[in-house]
Amino acid sequence: MEPLLIAGHWQSSQEWVASFRAENPATGETIGPEFPVSGAADVELALASASAVAPELAAAEPERIGAFLDAYAERLEAAADELCAIADGETALGVKPRLREVELPRTLNQLRQAAQVARSRAWTEPVIDTRAGLRTCFAPLSKPVAIFGPNNFPLAFNAVSGGDFAAAIAARNPVIAKAHPAHPQTCRKLAGLAHRALGDAGLPAATVQMIYHLPAALGLKLVSDRRLGAAAFTGSRAGGLALKQAADQAGVPFYAEMSSINPVFMLPGALAERGDEIAKEFVASCLAGCGQFCTNPGVVVVPRGASGDAFVAAARKAFETAPAGVLLARAVLDHLQQSVSGLRRAGAEVLCGGSRGDGPGYRFRPTLLGTGAAHFIAHAAALQQEAFGPVSLIVRADGEAEMESVARVFEGNLTGTLYSARDGHDDALAARIARTLRSRVGRLLNDRMPTGVAVSPAMNHGGPYPATGHPGFTSVGLPASIRRFAALECYDHVREDRLPPELRDKNPDGRLQRCIDGVWTAADIGMAA
Amino acid sequence: MEPLLIAGHWQSSQEWVASFRAENPATGETIGPEFPVSGAADVELALASASAVAPELAAAEPERIGAFLDAYAERLEAAADELCAIADGETALGVKPRLREVELPRTLNQLRQAAQVARSRAWTEPVIDTRAGLRTCFAPLSKPVAIFGPNNFPLAFNAVSGGDFAAAIAARNPVIAKAHPAHPQTCRKLAGLAHRALGDAGLPAATVQMIYHLPAALGLKLVSDRRLGAAAFTGSRAGGLALKQAADQAGVPFYAEMSSINPVFMLPGALAERGDEIAKEFVASCLAGCGQFCTNPGVVVVPRGASGDAFVAAARKAFETAPAGVLLARAVLDHLQQSVSGLRRAGAEVLCGGSRGDGPGYRFRPTLLGTGAAHFIAHAAALQQEAFGPVSLIVRADGEAEMESVARVFEGNLTGTLYSARDGHDDALAARIARTLRSRVGRLLNDRMPTGVAVSPAMNHGGPYPATGHPGFTSVGLPASIRRFAALECYDHVREDRLPPELRDKNPDGRLQRCIDGVWTAADIGMAA
Repeated sequence: MEPLLIAGHWQSSQEWVASFRAENPATGETIGPEFPVSGAADVELALASASAVAPELAAAEPERIGAFLDAYAERLEAAADELCAIADGETALGVKPRLREVELPRTLNQLRQAAQVARSRAWTEPVIDTRAGLRTCFAPLSKPVAIFGPNNFPLAFNAVSGGDFAAAIAARNPVIAKAHPAHPQTCRKLAGLAHRALGDAGLPAATVQMIYHLPAALGLKLVSDRRLGAAAFTGSRAGGLALKQAADQAGVPFYAEMSSINPVFMLPGALAERGDEIAKEFVASCLAGCGQFCTNPGVVVVPRGASGDAFVAAARKAFETAPAGVLLARAVLDHLQQSVSGLRRAGAEVLCGGSRGDGPGYRFRPTLLGTGAAHFIAHAAALQQEAFGPVSLIVRADGEAEMESVARVFEGNLTGTLYSARDGHDDALAARIARTLRSRVGRLLNDRMPTGVAVSPAMNHGGPYPATGHPGFTSVGLPASIRRFAALECYDHVREDRLPPELRDKNPDGRLQRCIDGVWTAADIGMAA
Repeated sequence: MEPLLIAGHWQSSQEWVASFRAENPATGETIGPEFPVSGAADVELALASASAVAPELAAAEPERIGAFLDAYAERLEAAADELCAIADGETALGVKPRLREVELPRTLNQLRQAAQVARSRAWTEPVIDTRAGLRTCFAPLSKPVAIFGPNNFPLAFNAVSGGDFAAAIAARNPVIAKAHPAHPQTCRKLAGLAHRALGDAGLPAATVQMIYHLPAALGLKLVSDRRLGAAAFTGSRAGGLALKQAADQAGVPFYAEMSSINPVFMLPGALAERGDEIAKEFVASCLAGCGQFCTNPGVVVVPRGASGDAFVAAARKAFETAPAGVLLARAVLDHLQQSVSGLRRAGAEVLCGGSRGDGPGYRFRPTLLGTGAAHFIAHAAALQQEAFGPVSLIVRADGEAEMESVARVFEGNLTGTLYSARDGHDDALAARIARTLRSRVGRLLNDRMPTGVAVSPAMNHGGPYPATGHPGFTSVGLPASIRRFAALECYDHVREDRLPPELRDKNPDGRLQRCIDGVWTAADIGMAA
């Protein structure tokens, strides 16, 4: 039985309740060693250990946090080939290009950006009122953060190496990572590198802990423990809502990203102008990563008529000729089959695909479903169920008014997209649909597919409920994503020598931007214009 | 039966389930007309009306929002004498100085600051990445905000005129105000002025609605309605937690401020140096407003020994000679009697006061309770129950280690205060206690009492659970308090002419500070250094 990274070292589960092994989803064969499903004693030990180091970590020099994140990135880079091979074996995402050329570089980029933001203290957003004697900034929670990683990004969203991890650590909080059981060997490898990087930087060894798997009830127990400062989850809606309820009742801030169908509106002028080009973009976006992205274009609204027909025909042809992709795990295939069945029961018609692919492992055929706008509106709840995989539902709308009506029934989503004519032909309709869509999505796009979430300070990977639990937070983009793992702390007439460096008169490094008496500046206090 | 302000005009309750009248708490006499306790039809009408105007309001020019808030402040100022007389009749807080010279000016200040922030768009906090084609800002929720006002600030925290109201409106959201039943005539007057100010500014009449009172179950129904964008509550812990649970389950962001005991640590050197002066500050803070402030110093940790004894004796003498103050309402007296009984059952000793005051109405004697540090620590949960009124619990600690141990048992509070010697004698102890207290409070003070919450951009009137529901938000201080009522909205390669003004290349007024490619600047895009 593989050991856990807990209480600062690799050790056997205190009380495992079951065990599991990884599978190669391309073959269905189990691979690698046995991993424990942890019991309550592991959770308790992790919470106690993280709580014990939280104050030391909160008081740590930002430089040490930066050093850890950089050292971790460096170790990941050095182990890239081995790591990507392990991850590919568990996920079938492919070493190249996906893991080695896209996801690993993104992971390194996130860790290094977090290192820079940790060092620069930019995430603390200091606000200072010299006349009122008040100085406020964001600060560490001084409590552990629990992170539940998803199945679909074994590196870049992994609970022990991904964006939530980097953000929680940048704010100087210890992390209890609940790995995803679909890729335990990858998590084992990552946690090992993190552990060594903690040593490189001289941070407490219990800063990062990792548990492979938990029974559902124990996950609820973990997120409802008041020793936690916050918890983050990326995964299914059912899982996210159950955890959210448990965390909410305990007053533990909980950040969930829990499914999204990412409506795309194809306006008539755009299809008339460049329908073939747009069909290619759509197909590439929907089938990349076997459709297993939170921003996968799961619903496409297409006008009735010739150019709409041509778009659908082109997409369908591409879907029919594309190979059945390998899904991440048996559970993904099971859920996808259930989701497609549910959509069919709700009246969606299968245009192509719709069933398992030939061959070993967990394959699914690229699938287009279709329905009419009136039917979609009448069965909006059932037809908005996410089908996580290479699947999209084409909604055909009769005229502009029907397109607008479709826009009005969408619940909260991560993204919403409008393709419109370059020559301005669609502008009036685009404006009306954008107005409706805007408050229903976190990110509004023009003329490009929603997959591909740039790691930028101006990104918002979030959105209104039920896409996430709160419309004011993003899980991607530094420093904003760190705000989830920080507390607002005010100092009222506190003596200057007792203030944290970011709030003292002298700017800590001469570069930190602070809002002083209403103006953002890197000046020292007393020196501002 | 008095009418409600609902669906854009004053009208009778659709379906009232009971009625009530105001009381003069100084005499216990009922005063004024009958007011309805609303039934489900009023709530439904308010939600439908607010939802209908939300998109128009979200799209309104910030200038109109500013004009409304300024016009409202002007109308309040013109009606100041009448308004303060009405509020005094219902609250006994006193026209002068409290209502006319402190609370009304604060209310006007908040509305006018909100007007300025609405116009300046500073609350939108634009973040722009020109290379990635991403532009993000905070935006209106495009849904109504429900606000539940408290009993203790009939003007400055009133659901229809206070800080939450100003913040929700500044973000261009309609407000459904649930007034506090302890001052219905004040609410009636305020809502009337708000209604007229909406007309002055040409905003939709249903932008502001006001319901006087709701059965508890209907309050839960209101906050769990998914048509709401957010809800805010200031009041008791029991009420706040019940509403929070209902809102959480529906995915409605809920901001609660729900009781705080605001620990104050008197360090030995401070008492030796200026114990008498500090005792006077403490007495003034604890008895102001009859102790009915969320930041009332409810627990004071005092070292054993001569200077501690002298501090307690001075405070006790002042409490004994101060008159019994008039509480806001019968319910406040009932709760206070229960709270003091609970503290006594948990082992606190009455040093002075502890019972109703002589005379008519709802009076309570200034009350000091006492206990030892070891006892406080052993019964920390029971002894941390808020006693809302002119009451404080003195905890006597034996030596520095015991003071530190007391600091470790506090749950989340709005504030924490340290008084220490000016000559540096207490510095080492102050540093250790501050470290412990820091993560348990939203605002840390040195050498001043926590009452008196300045309306400043650098204020944090918030704190860790259970003082509030989330440690990252403040209910006082603009523009930060607006963040509660805003959604993060990203534009990904959206054509420049389709962007909101705050995200366009040209700075909307040449003054809005935006974070462009990592630097805060008021420059246009393309013009940044």
